[in-house]
Amino acid sequence: MEATYRALCEHGYASLRMQDIADETTKTKAALHYHYDTKHELLLAFLEFIHEEFVENLETIEGDDPVTRLRTYIHERLTPHDEQQHQRFQTALLEIKAQAPYDDAYHERLAEFDRRSYAFVHELLIEGIENGTVRSDIDAERVGEFFVTTINGAETRHVAINHPIEETRDFLLGYIDTTLLAEESPEVAAR
Amino acid sequence: MEATYRALCEHGYASLRMQDIADETTKTKAALHYHYDTKHELLLAFLEFIHEEFVENLETIEGDDPVTRLRTYIHERLTPHDEQQHQRFQTALLEIKAQAPYDDAYHERLAEFDRRSYAFVHELLIEGIENGTVRSDIDAERVGEFFVTTINGAETRHVAINHPIEETRDFLLGYIDTTLLAEESPEVAAR
Repeated sequence: MEATYRALCEHGYASLRMQDIADETTKTKAALHYHYDTKHELLLAFLEFIHEEFVENLETIEGDDPVTRLRTYIHERLTPHDEQQHQRFQTALLEIKAQAPYDDAYHERLAEFDRRSYAFVHELLIEGIENGTVRSDIDAERVGEFFVTTINGAETRHVAINHPIEETRDFLLGYIDTTLLAEESPEVAAR
Repeated sequence: MEATYRALCEHGYASLRMQDIADETTKTKAALHYHYDTKHELLLAFLEFIHEEFVENLETIEGDDPVTRLRTYIHERLTPHDEQQHQRFQTALLEIKAQAPYDDAYHERLAEFDRRSYAFVHELLIEGIENGTVRSDIDAERVGEFFVTTINGAETRHVAINHPIEETRDFLLGYIDTTLLAEESPEVAAR
């Protein structure tokens, strides 16, 4: 799976061959084919793998309260740790997104990701409303979808025109502060 | 150019052949090649064509004041008139966006589009601040970029997971009402 990641970053999705993935390992192409009949099958397994990693990462996001965890998530999701590697991987992912209308299996894997991202933000908002740190008059479903959509947009613009994703991170962090925080939250009260 | 549009909707970007485009016209493939050496060249001309159409459409957006024009723009950009055709064309566009890191000419055409979308929203916000309909304490650059990013995200999610783009339209229209309108604007005063 790590070899697939490296090969995708190196070659992109469209021109990726099983040989390119084998080249990133100590195994032969034949050994790869023993586990995965086709490149498509391997890439589906890879999408499942990064989905599991994503879910595990969500579980490690720390913070005493839901708003802090939301900020940490936005920060981690929209800060490239290695600018070039990040963009290359996002490019391969965008190629797969653009294939999804032609490929039900890709569509289903991507939809799983999307649902999980949405559910994470939505649950934090609900938790925040319940403990009084998030305004109770916001529509948590609508705002949750908005976060997922805007993160998708940041990733697309980063790939297509090299627009910095950090800009969207800062916008969303500002949005949390000015629009989502409850008047009664300790943070706003302390201002 | 219209034949290219139809062929892209029909076949997508990756598997598009010059023959597919010729099939949408009364001309032969040889006649197409007389004007465009390669599929790449034809697609660059096509991107220029839809950019010009986009700019012309922006000029027809009517409305007495900048906020009305911004609402109309969001409405037009995020309402699919023909759901299936819209998604197919957006899919082809997303394929081209995912190719941009490998292709400077695509990158440049897409950047032109992006700059134009941003400039349109940004100018309306500045105009609104100047005539008192938009809050003077918003950062027009930041909000302009946010609109472009979120529209990109709506288009990506529409392609990748079939998420309805109208949801983002409604969110952004709500954002204009609750966050951008000035307290002194006639609309807010009339509430």
